[in-house]
Amino acid sequence: MKPYAFGVDIGGTTVKIGFFTTEGKFLDHWEIPTRKEGNGEMILPDIARAISKKLYEKNLSLNDLEGVGVGVPGPVLADGVVNKCVNLGWGVLDVRGQLSSLLSGVPVEVGNDANVAALGEQWNGGGKGHPNVVMVTLGTGVGGGIILNGKILPGAHGAAGEIGHMKVRDDEPETCGCGKKGCLEQYGSATGVVRLAKRALAADLSADTPLRSLDPLTAKDVFDYAKRGDEMSLAIVEEVGKMLGEAIAHITCVIDPDVVVIGGGVSKAGQILLDAVHKYYTPAAFHASRQSDFKLAVLGNDAGMYGAVRMILNK
Amino acid sequence: MKPYAFGVDIGGTTVKIGFFTTEGKFLDHWEIPTRKEGNGEMILPDIARAISKKLYEKNLSLNDLEGVGVGVPGPVLADGVVNKCVNLGWGVLDVRGQLSSLLSGVPVEVGNDANVAALGEQWNGGGKGHPNVVMVTLGTGVGGGIILNGKILPGAHGAAGEIGHMKVRDDEPETCGCGKKGCLEQYGSATGVVRLAKRALAADLSADTPLRSLDPLTAKDVFDYAKRGDEMSLAIVEEVGKMLGEAIAHITCVIDPDVVVIGGGVSKAGQILLDAVHKYYTPAAFHASRQSDFKLAVLGNDAGMYGAVRMILNK
Repeated sequence: MKPYAFGVDIGGTTVKIGFFTTEGKFLDHWEIPTRKEGNGEMILPDIARAISKKLYEKNLSLNDLEGVGVGVPGPVLADGVVNKCVNLGWGVLDVRGQLSSLLSGVPVEVGNDANVAALGEQWNGGGKGHPNVVMVTLGTGVGGGIILNGKILPGAHGAAGEIGHMKVRDDEPETCGCGKKGCLEQYGSATGVVRLAKRALAADLSADTPLRSLDPLTAKDVFDYAKRGDEMSLAIVEEVGKMLGEAIAHITCVIDPDVVVIGGGVSKAGQILLDAVHKYYTPAAFHASRQSDFKLAVLGNDAGMYGAVRMILNK
Repeated sequence: MKPYAFGVDIGGTTVKIGFFTTEGKFLDHWEIPTRKEGNGEMILPDIARAISKKLYEKNLSLNDLEGVGVGVPGPVLADGVVNKCVNLGWGVLDVRGQLSSLLSGVPVEVGNDANVAALGEQWNGGGKGHPNVVMVTLGTGVGGGIILNGKILPGAHGAAGEIGHMKVRDDEPETCGCGKKGCLEQYGSATGVVRLAKRALAADLSADTPLRSLDPLTAKDVFDYAKRGDEMSLAIVEEVGKMLGEAIAHITCVIDPDVVVIGGGVSKAGQILLDAVHKYYTPAAFHASRQSDFKLAVLGNDAGMYGAVRMILNK
């Protein structure tokens, strides 16, 4: 194996680039802007240029590279072809082939960003030491990734781990970004928690709660006031816990992982969230999978770079 | 590869033994009784004896065997150890090691029976040609198996594919065999369909339906009368379709398979069942996974033998 590799995490605003040894040591990282103009046609050349520049700085060449792993915010098929990335402007794009060409044939691996972050957490984060991990990412949306035997499960249509779009409620009047109604993402994401809070405030105009005076009202506020005993906040945390806990029980009935890792901004609420999820997970889970451990993610925004490079180290 | 292999499907009443070429040709099969006395200690010796006898009949020896695959009705860990098989009388038992010893070291592979049947259907049945298959078995209970890249997903605690115990309802007063309330098995199994029918009959004593006069009332009756237009039967089929369709949508959000295969006695209802499941699956599924195909199982009771031998051919 050659001595170095890069892990690249392409986001809608910036591209994070991590420089690693192939023994897994994280040497350096930096960001470049994601240039989306022209259907995102500059993104891969920008990445190739940034990598070449870093190698030049370090007095290294492409020959010293084992490969480049890339996480992208869209569905990725098993052959490294991205099947539409709306927020980068990409249609169907052979990211593996094109980036490899731009880097004179260096091997490239490509994965969906949520799956790649899950791989990072499995390798070096909350799931460390466990081959089979389900990661649930509670951010602006709800994402997920399934790692089996230390490898990403991509799915037949690049959609494995799309757990934010499990339908968990029949009576939802609003429409999710995916076009359905009642998706887990509508409740378990930061946006979802705020939505539930606003709905609760509107439904009970006489309720005396500190949430009412907040503008903007955030998911963090709801968890913070729940920790201080505010009844409405506690009820919302309970509702979120029920939907997440029961959905995770569905997932473990299917996958039976070693560990469930919960990450994303909402997971910063910490123990109060884990307790609420566990309260509803345990009675809903199949008995054998009740042993599955729950952990908080630890790598934060670096998970994508770790997971991306892991695809190269783990081939 | 040696020329022959056996696929063995251990059930609570009989053991089915299939004799195959290692090219996958199904040559012969027969059954022996499952002797459960003495905590099932005769079962593996009986199987070893039956295999040796068949080889002798065919003028073959253990040296002509590539191996023996075995499906058992209980959870199986990755190392071939069975973790309690209540209806065989087994506690924790090293089936792989013990049967291999009884057969002078012939390789043995062991899997859970529902998973093994799923592998059989993936290899040579409803899922043929597709590497990633979810099988849903609607029998006395609801079982399942997940096949990824042509291999069984066993799960960290031997419980992957236990989809009959996904909690799909909050308001169930009766307890499932697993100890929970509201499991998919309580609605989607043959027993579950009958239970729903009896509940519907009791709830509406004035309803004029041919179901009322049947004794015993079976799941087949409910589907048969639904096909003839009986309103109560149609409503039950609809209810079963909703619970199965939405649960399968959860599964495909997690796994994103190529194809979903539906088997077991209830699946003999055929198109009316597939239509009811699809009606609720499609709006609940993530858009990318809506392309997943639905098929009926085709191997029936032979699926276990096919899948068992496949574990040997597919190592």
